[in-house]
Amino acid sequence: MDLNSDLGESFGAWRMGDDAAMLDIVTSANVACGFHAGDPAGILDTLRAAAARGVAVGAHVGYPDLVGFGRRNMDPTSRELVADVIYQIGALQGLAAAAGTRVTYVKPHGALYNTIAHDRRQAEDVITALLELDAGLVLMALAGSPLLDWARERGLTVVAEAFADRAYTPGGALVSRREAGAVLHDPEQVADRMLDLVRTGEITAIDGSRVRLQADSICVHGDSPGAVAMARAVRQRLESAGVALTPFTDARTA
Amino acid sequence: MDLNSDLGESFGAWRMGDDAAMLDIVTSANVACGFHAGDPAGILDTLRAAAARGVAVGAHVGYPDLVGFGRRNMDPTSRELVADVIYQIGALQGLAAAAGTRVTYVKPHGALYNTIAHDRRQAEDVITALLELDAGLVLMALAGSPLLDWARERGLTVVAEAFADRAYTPGGALVSRREAGAVLHDPEQVADRMLDLVRTGEITAIDGSRVRLQADSICVHGDSPGAVAMARAVRQRLESAGVALTPFTDARTA
Amino acid sequence: MDLNSDLGESFGAWRMGDDAAMLDIVTSANVACGFHAGDPAGILDTLRAAAARGVAVGAHVGYPDLVGFGRRNMDPTSRELVADVIYQIGALQGLAAAAGTRVTYVKPHGALYNTIAHDRRQAEDVITALLELDAGLVLMALAGSPLLDWARERGLTVVAEAFADRAYTPGGALVSRREAGAVLHDPEQVADRMLDLVRTGEITAIDGSRVRLQADSICVHGDSPGAVAMARAVRQRLESAGVALTPFTDARTA
Amino acid sequence: MDLNSDLGESFGAWRMGDDAAMLDIVTSANVACGFHAGDPAGILDTLRAAAARGVAVGAHVGYPDLVGFGRRNMDPTSRELVADVIYQIGALQGLAAAAGTRVTYVKPHGALYNTIAHDRRQAEDVITALLELDAGLVLMALAGSPLLDWARERGLTVVAEAFADRAYTPGGALVSRREAGAVLHDPEQVADRMLDLVRTGEITAIDGSRVRLQADSICVHGDSPGAVAMARAVRQRLESAGVALTPFTDARTA
Repeated sequence: MDLNSDLGESFGAWRMGDDAAMLDIVTSANVACGFHAGDPAGILDTLRAAAARGVAVGAHVGYPDLVGFGRRNMDPTSRELVADVIYQIGALQGLAAAAGTRVTYVKPHGALYNTIAHDRRQAEDVITALLELDAGLVLMALAGSPLLDWARERGLTVVAEAFADRAYTPGGALVSRREAGAVLHDPEQVADRMLDLVRTGEITAIDGSRVRLQADSICVHGDSPGAVAMARAVRQRLESAGVALTPFTDARTA
Repeated sequence: MDLNSDLGESFGAWRMGDDAAMLDIVTSANVACGFHAGDPAGILDTLRAAAARGVAVGAHVGYPDLVGFGRRNMDPTSRELVADVIYQIGALQGLAAAAGTRVTYVKPHGALYNTIAHDRRQAEDVITALLELDAGLVLMALAGSPLLDWARERGLTVVAEAFADRAYTPGGALVSRREAGAVLHDPEQVADRMLDLVRTGEITAIDGSRVRLQADSICVHGDSPGAVAMARAVRQRLESAGVALTPFTDARTA
Repeated sequence: MDLNSDLGESFGAWRMGDDAAMLDIVTSANVACGFHAGDPAGILDTLRAAAARGVAVGAHVGYPDLVGFGRRNMDPTSRELVADVIYQIGALQGLAAAAGTRVTYVKPHGALYNTIAHDRRQAEDVITALLELDAGLVLMALAGSPLLDWARERGLTVVAEAFADRAYTPGGALVSRREAGAVLHDPEQVADRMLDLVRTGEITAIDGSRVRLQADSICVHGDSPGAVAMARAVRQRLESAGVALTPFTDARTA
Repeated sequence: MDLNSDLGESFGAWRMGDDAAMLDIVTSANVACGFHAGDPAGILDTLRAAAARGVAVGAHVGYPDLVGFGRRNMDPTSRELVADVIYQIGALQGLAAAAGTRVTYVKPHGALYNTIAHDRRQAEDVITALLELDAGLVLMALAGSPLLDWARERGLTVVAEAFADRAYTPGGALVSRREAGAVLHDPEQVADRMLDLVRTGEITAIDGSRVRLQADSICVHGDSPGAVAMARAVRQRLESAGVALTPFTDARTA
């Protein structure tokens, strides 16, 4: 199993998250590329720290909306979106090369992530971007989303991720953040759920039913001390149970 | 001999220069990377047009100053400048790969270009950026500037450029734009001067004396119809005289 | 009758439109505020030119999307949108004061303009922004749109505008740009239509029927030489027919 | 005596400083204007909190350099700098009006602050900006700097500030941050020094000598829990000694 987290999200004088702590926990780092967060110097620091620990690196590409942290919907044209995604991956590839590592996968961020999970036009644009740049890049997407099939159909390798701290519907979708109980806060409960998921391939939905969830990676957060503690609890629970934690891609330069 | 020009400098809805016309004239295109000019979609268009014509591509990296078009001095730290340069080259490499070409050289832009021609600290930062990303990248710099030696000392291949429309001092430096006669406007005179330079390795300075100028490339501008006409005149004069115009780097993907 | 146009849309080294020419034609200038276009120095130049000619000044507020020129839909929260609109108007008020004029009205731009013509939530946010900053600001909106009523209900003075170069549906709406015949190109035809509108309060729709259009201002464009010529034709036709052209607001400092 | 601090420096999802805590301590708030820090919605929150407490509001204007937090030298032209400063003050005036308060003074930030303390060209540009916008705006500047005289000569009211946590040279200048002992860390010592300054108009320089320092305001920081504690200590020491803490300008709308 793989553990991933969003990192490199500081910007200039503004700090966000504890990248050093998280890089000791996760096996794959989704690193910001400068459009929703991250400045080149800060990104390079994070990449060097990831390289030193053998953590795999993914491009965490987003909409060009720094003040909105990439969380606001936008409607770029296909021409714009394809180029924006390539630009961001390329920039991260350059910094990764300087850090002695490489970008092996791509995980869209925020509003772009949510949009392409269901909006086929923008989804195809992101897929096109990866194919035009490097068809060997893996696309990380929401477990259960049609994006996984759309990307496979065009020849991309995909990785499905589950969210450690989120409740699921009986249908296998994320419970909307607007609903009560959507976000889980107890590290022990979360760790239990993730071990359950790894062992059974199922998770207990918000109504108590069991739902099948095909996940290759678990997303944990690191944007608060509590979040880091929860991530650490998940890792420790899985390791104690003998689950091997390894990146789904090989961080070493090909 | 190589002819180079600054291209890809449109931004969103704002047009600048006639890239299509210039790509029929030059052999090397210095393409903006988004910090002083250029948006990803527009850059990709320019790269595709360059690829279609076999024009070599260089990264035209600048300070992060869109509103100032990279023409204002800034004092980034070394940590910032190294990462900014790598980020920009990487982004252009990504877009170039999607366009079926590759980035073979780097030409800093505007205030960064002028600063590193004499400021050793920032010069070494730019050199470091190239070495950390890909030591095979060629650095294009002002003919006669100490930057050429600084870069060679650290193992980079360098290319010296002359400016077609600029007057030179008897010492081989550019006459400051603040002085009368600094910029030449007559296409025929400019074409004559460049043919003279190619044939003799010398140029007539502003005081009428002859000065040696070691140049591997000639920079022409394309930001106005008059500039395009002048660039065309230079090309035609050189070709008519039997001077072969070829990029100093090979545009084909290695 | 009032003639308005979008001005101040250059950005740094990038030119857009011929503000000097248009300021000799229009009576009200919608001046960019830096979010979709316009840099402070360029905006100030435009404001000084408007002040010298007695042209009224409106704040042309937009989404924070320079690379998309404010033409892409975004979904800011109400907290964000209210503050973004106030910030832009305030910035323009400051520059207007320095130029010896003042901001008398607000015309949203691009995607924001189109969105608030029908999206009540964002419309109310824009109205709130005006009320919180200065309830005396006039809101310019699309003739026939419900926004006019929403703004009136909350106490704002509104001005409805017609577009000189656009075809209208029998229902009084703009024909979508995606449909044939949506944009008119013949200056004489456009001038005729606008004189007809001023005299009768009606316009001939795309199907030949007559439709009532309550308009207090006519929007003309200035982003190409042809556009400037069309704007001039409209002004001349109206003036020749004895229609007085005056701003709907008083440009003089209160 | 007045206590001032830099506030409103969060940006989008990134938090900086504890504005609520600091607004209970200071009498004047230097509020970021969006160029070096601050987004409109966050700025508006800070302004509302300042208005609720009767804290005076100043425009903390800076260079357009978000990623560098306005701390990097730039060389804008006079045309650019004058307009940039007016734009920022105007934007803050708009938001202040919406918050029920007003901008009474201007304190340049970071590299701009340091530059205009000695660079006359940029200093005159900032002075020009204030005069063109509203000659009643007060300029806050470094105690002992020639900027105070330059501004007075042109008719501005000025306020000189001392830095609570900085060591001074025998000549009354700040000890450079590059030298040992430049920054003081002990809240009690800092509070003692400020009470001494208020009582005697002198401060003990780094060499133990006494130096006269004409200061109308004391700058305290709030960017860390330790900084907030130090600011609180200064306030308490002054209040305990019977020193009245009041803003040097009147926060109430004129």
